[in-house]
Amino acid sequence: MRFDILTLFPEMFEAVLGDSIIGRARSKGLIELNFVQIREFAHNKHRQVDDYPYGGGAGMVMQAEPLYQAYQSVIEGLDYKPRTIYLSPQGKTFRQSTAKRLSKDKHQHIVLLCGHYEGVDQRLLDEIIDEELSLGDFVLTGGEIAAMAMVDATARLIPGVLKSEEAFSEESHFSGLLEYPQYTRPEVWHGEKVPEILLSGHHKNIEAWKRRMSIETTFKKRRGMLSKAKLSPDEKKLVKELKESENL
Amino acid sequence: MRFDILTLFPEMFEAVLGDSIIGRARSKGLIELNFVQIREFAHNKHRQVDDYPYGGGAGMVMQAEPLYQAYQSVIEGLDYKPRTIYLSPQGKTFRQSTAKRLSKDKHQHIVLLCGHYEGVDQRLLDEIIDEELSLGDFVLTGGEIAAMAMVDATARLIPGVLKSEEAFSEESHFSGLLEYPQYTRPEVWHGEKVPEILLSGHHKNIEAWKRRMSIETTFKKRRGMLSKAKLSPDEKKLVKELKESENL
Repeated sequence: MRFDILTLFPEMFEAVLGDSIIGRARSKGLIELNFVQIREFAHNKHRQVDDYPYGGGAGMVMQAEPLYQAYQSVIEGLDYKPRTIYLSPQGKTFRQSTAKRLSKDKHQHIVLLCGHYEGVDQRLLDEIIDEELSLGDFVLTGGEIAAMAMVDATARLIPGVLKSEEAFSEESHFSGLLEYPQYTRPEVWHGEKVPEILLSGHHKNIEAWKRRMSIETTFKKRRGMLSKAKLSPDEKKLVKELKESENL
Repeated sequence: MRFDILTLFPEMFEAVLGDSIIGRARSKGLIELNFVQIREFAHNKHRQVDDYPYGGGAGMVMQAEPLYQAYQSVIEGLDYKPRTIYLSPQGKTFRQSTAKRLSKDKHQHIVLLCGHYEGVDQRLLDEIIDEELSLGDFVLTGGEIAAMAMVDATARLIPGVLKSEEAFSEESHFSGLLEYPQYTRPEVWHGEKVPEILLSGHHKNIEAWKRRMSIETTFKKRRGMLSKAKLSPDEKKLVKELKESENL
C-alpha cells in the first residue's frame, strides 16, 4: 500500500514513521511512504506557497498552483486517480472504521494533503479532493500530526504489518469491551500484589477473570459501549449488579 | 507552561514540535518541553522495560519500575504533583475543551505518559495517573502521536503562543460554525474565478457572504452543529430553505 503525503514539513514524518511497527512494514515493502515538499513546486523567488485571502481576514491561504503541481508529480503516469484526502478540522472524524476502509482502498494508494495557515484555496480542493477528514474536535497547527495518526492506524490493518498475535489483540480492542488491567513482573511492587488468580495457572478461571475485569473497566470508563457489546445472561446480571452497587 | 513526556521514542518529538508555531513558542520561553527516555531508567543489562503479562495473553507489558523512576526524575524537587496523563485508546476522548482545560492547569505543568505494547502495569497507573486520555476511536502503535497532538492543541491556547489575529481565528473555529471557503491569488485558476463579491471591496457585503457561506458549509458537512449555533431569524430561514431545496 502506498501513501503520498503533500506537506510543507516532510522532515517531521521520517522521525515518527521510520521506527517501530511502521518502520518494519516499510523495510518489508508492505507499505511505501512518500513525502512531497509542496514548496518545491512554488516557482517564485522565495518559494512562497501562500498569499493573502481575497476579501480580507486573518492569516494566509495556501495557493492552488504549487499544491496542484505537487499533486501532479504524484499522479503522473498513473492510470487511476488515487483517493485524495484533505486533513482539516472541518472534515468527518477519523475512526477505526475509517482506517479499515482506507486499508481496503481499491488502488491501495492514498494521497494526504496537509493544510496549514488559514486553509487552502477552495478551487484546488474542489478539483482534487475526494474526502475531507479530521482527527477530532480540536485545532492543530497543521495537518501533519493528523496524517501521521491516520497512516499509523491504517497501516496497522494491512495484512502482514502486525504479527498475528498483535493483530488478534487489535481486534479485541474493538470487540465492544475495553481491556482488562495488565500486570507483569515483579509479583509485588510498592506493596501491591498482582491479583492472585493470574498466578494460579488455572487457565479457565483466568479467562473468566479477564472477561469480568473487561466488563468492569468498560462499565467504569465507557459505559455507553456496554449497550452494544455481546454479553451473556450472567454478564448482563453483573452489569446490573454494578449499577445497583453504585446506588448504595 | 511545562510538558514532560515519558516515552520510549523521544527522538520522534523534536522533529515535530521543534518547528512552526510550537517551535517559536519554545524559543520565546512560553512553553518548555522535556522528553524523558524511559529506557534510561531500566537498570538491567539490555535496558529492557517490558515483560510477559501475568496470566498469559498476547504481547508484552511495560513494567512499573522504569516508568516510576522516569516519573520520579520529573517530579523530584517539586512541591506539587503535576497533572499526569496516560495516553491510551481506553481514555476519554481529547477535545478542544480538554485542551482549554489543560492550558489553564493550576501548576502549568503536565506530564504525559506514552504507552506501548499491550499496555502498562496497572499498579503504576493506579499510583501516578490522574487522567487517561484518548485521541479518538482508533488504535495507534504508541502514545507518541497522541501526545504530539495534545501538546500542539494545548500550547496554541496559551497566551502569547499565537499572534493575536491567529488566536482570533482560532476562536471562530469553535464559534459553532465551520469556516467559509478561502481564496487567494490568482483571480482565475483553471478557469475558475474567485467569487465576484470578494473582489468588490464592499466590506459589509463580504462579511454577509462569509457568514452565509459558513452556514452553508456547516449545513453540508456538520449539520448537527447548527442546532447549537447562534443564528439570527434570517439565518434560521436560510437553514430552512437549504433543507427544503434538498427535498426537491
